[in-house]
Amino acid sequence: MHKSRLAGFIIDCDTPDIHAAAAFWGGALGMPAQRLPDAEGERYVQLVDRNERLHVEVQAVEHASRVHLDIETDDIEAEVRRLETLGATRVAQVHTWWVMQAPTGQRFCVVRAKSPSFADEANRWA
Amino acid sequence: MHKSRLAGFIIDCDTPDIHAAAAFWGGALGMPAQRLPDAEGERYVQLVDRNERLHVEVQAVEHASRVHLDIETDDIEAEVRRLETLGATRVAQVHTWWVMQAPTGQRFCVVRAKSPSFADEANRWA
Repeated sequence: MHKSRLAGFIIDCDTPDIHAAAAFWGGALGMPAQRLPDAEGERYVQLVDRNERLHVEVQAVEHASRVHLDIETDDIEAEVRRLETLGATRVAQVHTWWVMQAPTGQRFCVVRAKSPSFADEANRWA
Repeated sequence: MHKSRLAGFIIDCDTPDIHAAAAFWGGALGMPAQRLPDAEGERYVQLVDRNERLHVEVQAVEHASRVHLDIETDDIEAEVRRLETLGATRVAQVHTWWVMQAPTGQRFCVVRAKSPSFADEANRWA
């Protein structure tokens, strides 16, 4: 048995200035931008949801700007296999996560669970 | 004074079969697909979030597949102007909503508020 759920959305920005990008998106969505520590902070800025609905991050990337979603899980390999049976394909393994592609073409990531509510609210797969 | 907030995310799928696309995304995210009534149902399928965190829809489109976000507001014109001051540009008005483009390149929509929690939780702009 493993679990997974929609973790949130990442706003991928093809920009050398992650903080300008985060200032726009934080202002547009009314979500304060929160710098992340150390090396992570050079590439990612979290947008804080005061109602704790969802994890939203702005990320500096070197491909075309887009929005992608993350699925979080307590068992990456089991979740990737489950998604493959639904029709998704593996694109690349990066650090601890997998980049996958949906049958409809969008890229998304399968990442290690870190939401506080994951244990209670994630879907359980047999 | 007007209000706005992040309404949710739309998974745009370049497909003639919206129900197959919704079956994949509903299965991937563990969110049951719910058909919408009448003409809307030919183009959109709602993915139901049991924890009511966010509105997620799968939409059949005739451009490249992507994910976009919606900002909901009680005053479309005021919100579009606010977003213009942050650097976004108008792309096209469609029915009651505006398609806009972020300075970082992503398209997003400004739509009429319909979330039950909008009145209590939206950001207020002077």
